[in-house]
Amino acid sequence: MLEQVPIKPRSIRDYHGIVEDDLIDEIYSLSKKITDLRILHINATKFGGGVAEILNNYIPLLQDLWVGTVWQTIIADDRLFEVTKSFHNGLQGKECKIGHDEQRTYERFNAYNAQLLEGDWDIVVIHDPQPLAIPYYLEKNHTKWLWRCHIDASEADANVWAYLDPYLKEFDGAIFSLESFIPDNFPIKKRYVVHPAIDPLSEKNKEIDQKLASSIIKSHGLDITKPIMTQISRFDPWKDPLGVIEAYKLAKKKIDGLQLVLVGSMANDDPEGWKIYQKVVDISKKDKNIFIFTNLGDLDINAFQSASSLVIQKSIKEGFGLTVAEAMWKENLVIGGDTGGIRLQIIDGETGYLVNSVEECAGKVVYSLNDPSVKGEIGKRAKEHIRKEFLIPRLLRDELRIYNELLEK
Amino acid sequence: MLEQVPIKPRSIRDYHGIVEDDLIDEIYSLSKKITDLRILHINATKFGGGVAEILNNYIPLLQDLWVGTVWQTIIADDRLFEVTKSFHNGLQGKECKIGHDEQRTYERFNAYNAQLLEGDWDIVVIHDPQPLAIPYYLEKNHTKWLWRCHIDASEADANVWAYLDPYLKEFDGAIFSLESFIPDNFPIKKRYVVHPAIDPLSEKNKEIDQKLASSIIKSHGLDITKPIMTQISRFDPWKDPLGVIEAYKLAKKKIDGLQLVLVGSMANDDPEGWKIYQKVVDISKKDKNIFIFTNLGDLDINAFQSASSLVIQKSIKEGFGLTVAEAMWKENLVIGGDTGGIRLQIIDGETGYLVNSVEECAGKVVYSLNDPSVKGEIGKRAKEHIRKEFLIPRLLRDELRIYNELLEK
Repeated sequence: MLEQVPIKPRSIRDYHGIVEDDLIDEIYSLSKKITDLRILHINATKFGGGVAEILNNYIPLLQDLWVGTVWQTIIADDRLFEVTKSFHNGLQGKECKIGHDEQRTYERFNAYNAQLLEGDWDIVVIHDPQPLAIPYYLEKNHTKWLWRCHIDASEADANVWAYLDPYLKEFDGAIFSLESFIPDNFPIKKRYVVHPAIDPLSEKNKEIDQKLASSIIKSHGLDITKPIMTQISRFDPWKDPLGVIEAYKLAKKKIDGLQLVLVGSMANDDPEGWKIYQKVVDISKKDKNIFIFTNLGDLDINAFQSASSLVIQKSIKEGFGLTVAEAMWKENLVIGGDTGGIRLQIIDGETGYLVNSVEECAGKVVYSLNDPSVKGEIGKRAKEHIRKEFLIPRLLRDELRIYNELLEK
Repeated sequence: MLEQVPIKPRSIRDYHGIVEDDLIDEIYSLSKKITDLRILHINATKFGGGVAEILNNYIPLLQDLWVGTVWQTIIADDRLFEVTKSFHNGLQGKECKIGHDEQRTYERFNAYNAQLLEGDWDIVVIHDPQPLAIPYYLEKNHTKWLWRCHIDASEADANVWAYLDPYLKEFDGAIFSLESFIPDNFPIKKRYVVHPAIDPLSEKNKEIDQKLASSIIKSHGLDITKPIMTQISRFDPWKDPLGVIEAYKLAKKKIDGLQLVLVGSMANDDPEGWKIYQKVVDISKKDKNIFIFTNLGDLDINAFQSASSLVIQKSIKEGFGLTVAEAMWKENLVIGGDTGGIRLQIIDGETGYLVNSVEECAGKVVYSLNDPSVKGEIGKRAKEHIRKEFLIPRLLRDELRIYNELLEK
């Protein structure tokens, strides 16, 4: 058997009063039609990374609706993950060569996991490339197969695409996070788009007392009587932490006592990230108003998103950018890079600001810190926008619609 | 070159007023004698796990003292780590077979990293088994080699020991965490013992406002007006989380509204841990006063250790048990298993309670919750005991003594 992931129970009722009743009603009625069905989600890891986080958020809700949903992970190790990491990079547009050994490793692990798959399923949802080849190794039956791609594959390297093509052909449908993530000539005909979403009840996003948020920020050494700008993002060139520091340096000339917070997470297998981190640390040694934190807990993240004066997400390239939705949900003002999914969330001047340069970013920081009414108005609209479009019940509804549609055929 | 780990600067001066002046003075005078020396620490990972945590705490302090200390990590991947994980288990007493392929992998990675090692060092400290064979592949020179073993190797499997023997012979000395961790017939003659220590200024251990701690606990859904017992530990049979639940069930018959908190961290490569987690979650579904949390942030851990009514560490087998020191440092009452390093920290009835069974544990819970003066008195002595014996400056002093002694010869 594949590995079954333990699930802490949760209830869709808890979202009453947060999202529209109509949405909850639709979820109930969609789930009623498929109550008897068995749905299996398969991904690579139980813990760590965005995919496991999103599965942790919505699998318990599907189970609460009596949709017979199970989450299992493949049995694999770093030999597979090294290969699929290069697939991942290839899907994101990096050049990627797939040699004999890589192919053999990938196929061997998928064939092995296909044998481990037990039970009779109406729908199996495969997440990302790691377990993608499993259906290829199984006898055809009534099971519908969905590939859930969490990656922006619009500029995928041709080698990866060509290699994965026969495996993709086994699927009945594919789900992407954004329309623009779907590459030309994608071999699966039935394509769905389900935008990412945040969970308003998670540790990271639940409403916390403003006083608690301030105390937490204070406990990290910041002066809460002075303005704070915060970016929460990996130390990755596409997230442009060095650009954020430049913008801060420009803005602090006009804003007395401005503080900059950069919160990132680190991984051992990310040498580029460590290099940027080293640079950022070196810069912060010379400016006591720059604060660098790594691997903070969810409650700290929540506090910084809730009680910073404003939040930056100055990405140069971005998939969706969930940290934007997280901060907007807390009625904060977000200044974001004019790219990718950030554009869906920030309507420039309405629900936040979109910027294309360091100077523009600094300008918006100064402008909004000088006039607190800006944040008040934009923050309210930001929260409402996220409430309507980017909370987990909407994602649940979208997925249930797909399951229903798939089984009607 | 091996990978250099970025260091956030910190100062030994910050520990003035926390530990004795004499200790700080001794640290200064010990470090003065070796100011010109170059010391290199090598371990497997920059982030994650106890070894990286302790290096993160004390390398910046060595650098602050102008001891020319550098921290580097080996270049390796899961092929090595799978082999050394079985060494790790073997050192802890599990049966361990080392086949031709495992040997080749281990030797190849170590020879490769030996070639990558650059610079002229007075002392190189190798942490744990992953980089242990590096000196074997290098020309002898004036460099002194120390092996820092963080594992209880007292009952090590004979196969691992025999295999590592020629590599161990290259070392000038070895450091263990406890006297009892050193195996019989250990081939390195010069042996040192340096007890583990906690950092009183880290996010996890720094003093936080009691009101902040209570608000954080409240934000996790607990009733702070009712008693709370907390164990912070991996979901691992040796930490006996199921025994803690049994003790809680006995105690709650006598203590109205008693709540149990189990905080653990999870890893993808720990199927046994996930099984226990599943059991614990299933039990908690039937009792709304049992709270299970995974992968909380350091500030949350700090809050639970500071503001729980009491802390449990009901281990059946334990290396040192740093969570015991962490809670004692916060003046909390700790009820710990009568085993391993817990015995060094808890002097029964003086600085906490040692227990040998579920019933004894439940009895001490009831006894101390019924008489709040117990916690007050024990808590003070507990903090003082940790202050004297188990804070990071003492560890720093011990290591500096060893460097000095090693270079005198």
